[in-house]
Amino acid sequence: MSTTILFAGGAARWPTWEAPLRRALSEAGITAELTTSAPPEAVDFIIYAPSGDTPADFTPFIRCRAVLSLWAGVERIVGNATLTQPLCRMVDPGLTHGMVEYVTGHALRYHLGIDALLAAQNGHWNPVVPPLAAERPVAVLGLGALGAACARALGGLGFPVLGWSRNPKQLDGIDCHHGETGLDAVLRRAEIVVTLLPATPATENLLDTRRLALLPQGAAIINPGRGTLIDDEALLAALASGQVGAATLDVFRTEPLPADHPYWSHPRVTVTPHIAAETRPDSAARVIAENVRRSLADEPLMHLVDRDAGY
Amino acid sequence: MSTTILFAGGAARWPTWEAPLRRALSEAGITAELTTSAPPEAVDFIIYAPSGDTPADFTPFIRCRAVLSLWAGVERIVGNATLTQPLCRMVDPGLTHGMVEYVTGHALRYHLGIDALLAAQNGHWNPVVPPLAAERPVAVLGLGALGAACARALGGLGFPVLGWSRNPKQLDGIDCHHGETGLDAVLRRAEIVVTLLPATPATENLLDTRRLALLPQGAAIINPGRGTLIDDEALLAALASGQVGAATLDVFRTEPLPADHPYWSHPRVTVTPHIAAETRPDSAARVIAENVRRSLADEPLMHLVDRDAGY
Repeated sequence: MSTTILFAGGAARWPTWEAPLRRALSEAGITAELTTSAPPEAVDFIIYAPSGDTPADFTPFIRCRAVLSLWAGVERIVGNATLTQPLCRMVDPGLTHGMVEYVTGHALRYHLGIDALLAAQNGHWNPVVPPLAAERPVAVLGLGALGAACARALGGLGFPVLGWSRNPKQLDGIDCHHGETGLDAVLRRAEIVVTLLPATPATENLLDTRRLALLPQGAAIINPGRGTLIDDEALLAALASGQVGAATLDVFRTEPLPADHPYWSHPRVTVTPHIAAETRPDSAARVIAENVRRSLADEPLMHLVDRDAGY
Repeated sequence: MSTTILFAGGAARWPTWEAPLRRALSEAGITAELTTSAPPEAVDFIIYAPSGDTPADFTPFIRCRAVLSLWAGVERIVGNATLTQPLCRMVDPGLTHGMVEYVTGHALRYHLGIDALLAAQNGHWNPVVPPLAAERPVAVLGLGALGAACARALGGLGFPVLGWSRNPKQLDGIDCHHGETGLDAVLRRAEIVVTLLPATPATENLLDTRRLALLPQGAAIINPGRGTLIDDEALLAALASGQVGAATLDVFRTEPLPADHPYWSHPRVTVTPHIAAETRPDSAARVIAENVRRSLADEPLMHLVDRDAGY
């Protein structure tokens, strides 16, 4: 019986994904029909990303062995009660590399005071040497695949890295903390905070007024995770008071971020347009193909979502 | 008999150095009087950096066991005929760390297009995802201690690193080239060029009109090495034509860089005020303390200057 793979990532994404997916499936030795349209009862796998074309009701997909997300974040599908099939998140090595580059680049930017250097091209020779990275504690909130990779890269550059996760984790070379009291302890020391947690009810407004006040004065925040992790009003107030020195934000409650949002015009906020965690078609397609191969061989799927935890 | 250490680095530097030196001496188990003023005949060690307060005549320092320079370059003292005591240069691990942070920070800044992001905080959501570092070749010209450390760090971030040195060298994970034809081959591929060569007649104007023309159009240059490595007129012309996209320059033929120099006002040139290779008091003080300890224990000094070679 032939295998049918439905690409349900939207017509706009199909041109980007078709060739990498066909190549990856072929390299994995999988013979399958990859299509943007098929009768639900004939579909073996759904490749999913949120879009207007995405099925809202998964009930008719009676033969579907797995829904394979092209996105790392699955909050827009995980609560769908009609989805009874296994759901896998994307853990794309290319996305991870891109995230590490974004996080290390912006952390070094704040560490070296590059914004101030760019603003001081005025003919005044004013040598101010930044401290070494070894004297600049950086916190990484969230130690999943992305957070762990960023923590390791920041540690490799010499930053003392404080890691935080809801449940206890251990990472070589990272000073790992967990739970509510662990979070407070981490925030009290972090001059740069990187937020890489999933969007769940438990992480909503994680960085609120109380927790922002724990940071050393003038700390910088880098949020390439999820817009809901930050209480926007609290952050704007902390920026206004100087408690938070600067923020680089890649994700927002509403995207695109409305043109009149105060983040755009704030001199110490850098808005980046959701580019930090971009799935890279070549490497992500290989992850999809490997999960298809595993399912067909009755091997355990990679990156299976825990439906209760929500990620 | 007590040990007297004279800080002869100038009154302006004393506030920066006093605490790190006292801490390092204490950690090394050395009991000594550290002072900015002592009768020459009572001085056991001189900590030296060029300044108005520095002794010009070392003859009265009859008990002095060593002159310990805070600077790596000793060209302003090595020719002093009254200096008969052993002279040690500074080799500061903190300086290497600082250089790596500067080079990786500015390389990631160009790689991620951070200047353009900062200039585009205008309410327009325009997602442009940079390529991965794996697709961005970076050249490091000069593979001494600093160049090699930067090449390794850039490779660790995923950049394909092309290394170049005058004579053949080998570094794990770095695509090493040498000689004149090797330099041309490296420049033809490098989207970011880091110059970390010493100032010698052979490296004067290394990046001249002909070699700048070999670069891929729009390449970025980072020069934390020596001002003489770049033909300034050639660089300004290459920036004007777009052949060179941007440059970050930390060293200049004349320092401070004159306020009317065109580098200051060029929108795609970033002037940094010779801060990339700064001696760091904490780590350098430990080097000083270790040499004091060695001398008192009659062990060989580290980083002893060869007076004939001049370094």
